Amino acid sequence: MYKLVLLRHGESLWNQENRFTGWTDVALSSKGIEEAQNAARLLVQKGFSFDVAYTSFLKRAVKTLWLVLEEMDLMWLPVYKTWSLNERHYGGLQGLNKKETEQKYGKSKVLLWRRSFDTLPPTQLGNDLPSSFPTKDHPKDHRYKDLRSQKIPTGESLKNTMERVLPYWEREIVPKIQEGKRILLVAHGNSIRSLVKDLDSLSNEEILKVNIPTGSPLMYTLDQDLKPISRSYLD
Amino acid sequence: MYKLVLLRHGESLWNQENRFTGWTDVALSSKGIEEAQNAARLLVQKGFSFDVAYTSFLKRAVKTLWLVLEEMDLMWLPVYKTWSLNERHYGGLQGLNKKETEQKYGKSKVLLWRRSFDTLPPTQLGNDLPSSFPTKDHPKDHRYKDLRSQKIPTGESLKNTMERVLPYWEREIVPKIQEGKRILLVAHGNSIRSLVKDLDSLSNEEILKVNIPTGSPLMYTLDQDLKPISRSYLD
Repeated sequence: MYKLVLLRHGESLWNQENRFTGWTDVALSSKGIEEAQNAARLLVQKGFSFDVAYTSFLKRAVKTLWLVLEEMDLMWLPVYKTWSLNERHYGGLQGLNKKETEQKYGKSKVLLWRRSFDTLPPTQLGNDLPSSFPTKDHPKDHRYKDLRSQKIPTGESLKNTMERVLPYWEREIVPKIQEGKRILLVAHGNSIRSLVKDLDSLSNEEILKVNIPTGSPLMYTLDQDLKPISRSYLD
Repeated sequence: MYKLVLLRHGESLWNQENRFTGWTDVALSSKGIEEAQNAARLLVQKGFSFDVAYTSFLKRAVKTLWLVLEEMDLMWLPVYKTWSLNERHYGGLQGLNKKETEQKYGKSKVLLWRRSFDTLPPTQLGNDLPSSFPTKDHPKDHRYKDLRSQKIPTGESLKNTMERVLPYWEREIVPKIQEGKRILLVAHGNSIRSLVKDLDSLSNEEILKVNIPTGSPLMYTLDQDLKPISRSYLD
């Protein structure tokens, strides 16, 4: 029997401003910092500890993890960071206010962009999906330089997000769980939904109704075959 | 030609109280936090960036590194933590006030413990060096559980410290430098002195006069064979 904790970063400055964020590297708000520290206190209270942590390349997730490790007195823990756990890339929507976008494009269009399983958001550079690099949000961004330019997204559906989250999960994290390592994974709404869809075998429709709250540790108990025995938010 | 930056952590609470620290896991003082942030500003001003960072298992080094990465907007950087870069283990001296220890044991004895190349400090558990685990400073400490108990020191000379720092350096860091990765290493007075002794080919006597200040980035320029062309503290 294995335990796994998934944690969405605390509130970011753009969550607060109701803007599409995606790969834009936005910091935590002061409420987000508190949420991270509260999550850590809850984990300590419930007797959790960890052997390894995973997070994305985005500072709202990294900072949330750092705050948790500091509060849990686990600053020495090995941490792996990967673009594969980044938030869904929101293409041309990144930076736009969600309300204003609804007014401009209509509610049903925005709902489709946000909630459909496989609809792409509009890209930064028109209606097609150019594979050229750099793009608006990572112009020569050093952190993505080891990633082949064709693989750098300019806009992703949840389906596309899953297609990079799950191979990383299978390749890097699953073997660690099977070794008995206790894993903390701090990531984003849609990278966590990708894992939840897979773990809980949800359909393309079911996953669309799943919302992952910020700063709430989601604990899975898994059997030998990594099938969930139980799942619950700590409180 | 390669560049390498070594950084001793900012002032810790026990630096401030003039106590022997070693492997005891003491936090930064508020002055230490400022020192780390100033070091980062200096690195940004001088146009430095990095590809990989290394640090120890001790929070005063990890936190210094985190503060530097946050200030440099490099929170996504891969970070490797290792006990091999820990401070010299000060055995039974850990926690003692340096002044009081001089009064108790005499100045010349304390000078020998602090400054001799190969004299061991007194251990926690008497005058011999038991290899048993746990010891006072890492009772069942989770972070050292992958280390064979015989390898966990109960007191080290600078020579002993070098004997764990240099194999890690050769095995993990040198290949990365040779790949062209720009390295930031945040560690401790004696783990950094171990590297400086080796890089600068200092004698056992010469290294004893070298003091590494807290929070001052020490920049090495190395040739193809990793021989130093120049070294200087940034200011």
